[in-house]
Formats: sequence, C-alpha cells, structure tokens
Amino acid sequence: MVPTAWIISIGNELLIGRVVNTNAAWLAKKLTYLGYRVRRILVIPDDEEDIVNAFREALSKADLVVSTGGLGPTPDDITNFAVAKALGVDITLDETAKGWVLEKYRQRGYPATPERLKMAYIPSGAKPLYNSVGVAPGIWFERGGKIVVVLPGVPKEMEAIFEEQVEPLLRERGPGLCFAEDSFHLAGVPEADLSPLIKEALRIDERIYVKSHPKGHETGAPLEEIHIYGSASSCEEARGLVERVRAFLVEEISKRFPQAKIYK
Amino acid sequence: MVPTAWIISIGNELLIGRVVNTNAAWLAKKLTYLGYRVRRILVIPDDEEDIVNAFREALSKADLVVSTGGLGPTPDDITNFAVAKALGVDITLDETAKGWVLEKYRQRGYPATPERLKMAYIPSGAKPLYNSVGVAPGIWFERGGKIVVVLPGVPKEMEAIFEEQVEPLLRERGPGLCFAEDSFHLAGVPEADLSPLIKEALRIDERIYVKSHPKGHETGAPLEEIHIYGSASSCEEARGLVERVRAFLVEEISKRFPQAKIYK
Repeated sequence: MVPTAWIISIGNELLIGRVVNTNAAWLAKKLTYLGYRVRRILVIPDDEEDIVNAFREALSKADLVVSTGGLGPTPDDITNFAVAKALGVDITLDETAKGWVLEKYRQRGYPATPERLKMAYIPSGAKPLYNSVGVAPGIWFERGGKIVVVLPGVPKEMEAIFEEQVEPLLRERGPGLCFAEDSFHLAGVPEADLSPLIKEALRIDERIYVKSHPKGHETGAPLEEIHIYGSASSCEEARGLVERVRAFLVEEISKRFPQAKIYK
Repeated sequence: MVPTAWIISIGNELLIGRVVNTNAAWLAKKLTYLGYRVRRILVIPDDEEDIVNAFREALSKADLVVSTGGLGPTPDDITNFAVAKALGVDITLDETAKGWVLEKYRQRGYPATPERLKMAYIPSGAKPLYNSVGVAPGIWFERGGKIVVVLPGVPKEMEAIFEEQVEPLLRERGPGLCFAEDSFHLAGVPEADLSPLIKEALRIDERIYVKSHPKGHETGAPLEEIHIYGSASSCEEARGLVERVRAFLVEEISKRFPQAKIYK
C-alpha cells in the first residue's frame, strides 16, 4: 500500500490569484519522490474555521498532512492555533521555540512582543522545527501512525525547513518507496489516436501511470509529451518498470503510426 | 452577500508536482474581479470517485464551481462523465458539440473515433462552450441559482473559453460587485510590529482586507508589501474604500514608525 499525503495551502493571496501556488508543486514533487501518493491539494483562506475543517478532513483521509502558510506574526497568522484545535489538543508556549524566536529578534535589538511570542506556540505533543532562513518555526506532530507537518508560507523558509528537517524524518518513518519517471515527445499522432495504446500500457503494471500531455495542436500539428511514472520498493525496480512501459510504447507507436516522430 | 466560488483542478500531473497550477491562479484572479469570493481551490487526481466527490462537496458549499482538466480524448479524461454523475443527470451526446468536434478533425482529414466523440458528451441540460483554440468543448450548467463551469486543462484553451464565453455570462448573472486593490512597500518595520496597526485597519470596513507580505528578512532588513483589497457594489465605492484604508495606514505608519520608508 502506497501511503497517501494531502497538502493544505493557507492564504487569501492564493485565492485572489495574487500568488501562484508554487509551494504546493514543490512539496508535491518532494513527497512523490519520498514514495507518498499525493491525493489532494486544498487551498483555503486565513480563516480559523476553514483551517480546522481542512485539517480534520485531511487527517481522516491521509497518512501525512503538510501545510504551508499562516505561521507569521500578523493577525491573520493563526495556523498553529487552528491546527491544535483540529487535533483536539491544547496550544502551548514551547520553550525551545520561544528561545529561537526571541534570540532572532534579540540579535537585532528588537524586544519580545505578544505578536512575536505567538510564533512560539505549538500544539501540545508537537515538536518545533527550526527555521534557518526566517523566524517562524515549523511544527511536526505524530499520532497513531499519522504525521502532520506545518510549515511557513515564505518559499525559502518552507524549503529550508523541509529539506533540513522534515525530509530526514520522513525518510526514516516514510514508505521507503522509490519513484521513477521518464518521458518522450511524439509528433504527428493526434492524442485521440494514442488513447487505445495508452490504455494497453496502463495494463502492464498497476504501479505505473502513463499520461499524454498535448503540447501542439490536436488537429493541426499534433505533438504530445508522453510521461511514464511509478513507484516500487526499490529504485532499480521502479526504473525497470518505467523502462519496460516506455519500450512497449515506443515499439507499438513505430508499428501503428509509421508517420510518427519520436524524440526525447 | 458576496457569492462564493470554488475552483477544482483535475490532473495527476498537478499532484506529482510536474505542473504548477497556474490555471487556478488565473481563474482565481478573474473570479475575484468579477465579484466572487473564491473560498477554496481543490486539486484532485484523474479519478472518477475523487471528481464526483469534489463536485458534490463544492456544489453544497459554493454558488459557482469552475473546474479545469480532464476533457480531452485520452482514457484518463473523464471529467464530463463524472460531473454528470455528481449532478445526478444523464450524460448525452450533444449535437452541437459533436458538430464542432467532428468538423475540427474533418478539416485535417481525421475520421470520427469513439475517443473523439467522447469529447462531445455533456451532462443533460448543460450547454456546450465552443473551444476556439483546441478541440474539447467546455460545459456550462445552471441549476437552482448555482452555476457549474467545466473547462479543459490546456491553459490557452481554458483562457479562450473563459474570456470568450464564460466571462460575458458571469457578468450577466454574477454578483455585479467591483473589486479594487492597491499596495505599497514598507521598509524598516518588522512585520510583527505592524500587526496591531493592521488589526485596526481591518476594523475600518468589513468589505476590506489588508495583508502584509514579507519580502525582506524579519529581523535583518525588514521589508513588506502591504496589500489592501475589497469589493463593493460600484467600482468607485470599492476604490474609495481601498483609498481610505491606504491613507489611514500611511498616516499611522509615519506617526508610529518615523524610521520607516514607504514607497510604491
């Protein structure tokens, strides 16, 4: 069984189209390579009820929930409080996190204020994650085999905390699956004509997925990128599966569509 | 009451991080300017059950549901069928849509195949939307004051159908609200210190939202973009509200933080 992950992106700026959600794509790729199947990305506003409901729903469906956004010092940063509520635990001032936050401000001569200390509150039983780029710590929480990871929304801070701390922990506890992928381009065959062949390729192994992405024009100059990917318990096996499906597709395309051009 | 919208993005490529969801940001901005409040973006796989559940949930919560992806000729393109199921109506071969699809292929000498005809099926009672860029038609469905819009995932096709056909219809039936926004940059004040002032600004008018976006480093060289936005029944009123809140913020910042630098 491939464990599942949900990503929750928090922030009004995403819902008014002011910011493109690159964080979710970055995390989705990371989690996929770590062997998780990302089943849903939820983008929600900076609203307590929305955050609580999204985490509850995600926890009922996924093995791993990763969120970004809402951990800073402004009034709309309420993710840590809402996550505690969703988990049904108290929110507590974490001494380690408090030390990190105050030290960052102290170095520049800024005093402690309630807005600053707010960032050091985490759900009871959670572990704070050091932010080497900014101030707001991330949060790691485990219960009953489920993992919750709460990260800031600033991309550089999110990526640093993930790579420095979350990734090693997920490698330890995670699925231990290896993801592999390959792709090629195909010119001269309308996507609709490829359809039966892709169906056949999907039947080769259920761990493999094949998808065609139209890049040209279906009836004018048809061009597709054919993407093959999947996970297996070893990287060698995953690569082998992808290679087998790729070879099948290339051979069958040459046979069925002599006019087709295949290139990397 | 501001009517609400949900966006559903369908496609495995979004969930493995291969594609960044620019479609959702583009649509979110369009819908916001049309006067909708986008409350959620859901990214889900090319899976019938996921699509049916997402549409049912969205329809129970939002006034307008707009989806992208899964309308093409390949086996994983199943959105039209899943939407009919979610709406509880039959799926039917639409004669107008059939004419469009077959004509596009006929021009290039391609015959009709089941994979091609699949794109001309729409939920009973729906209206097909002509695709001036590609082949797959979009879908418009109205029931009990709720609107469902189903668009292809190829950005150029999605944008063309939206601008040429969906936008005029939404202007007719939609909320008739006007969205306005403004922003300025602020250097030298840590975001945490701005927090109480933003709280005060939010109290000026409930139709207005203020958010600070950290661009620099909280404790090193603090720099924020302050974004003010909101909707009102006329564009003049919306702009007036935004201007009032901006003037309040600029004046109070100059008073409370004499070291601060404000620029556009």
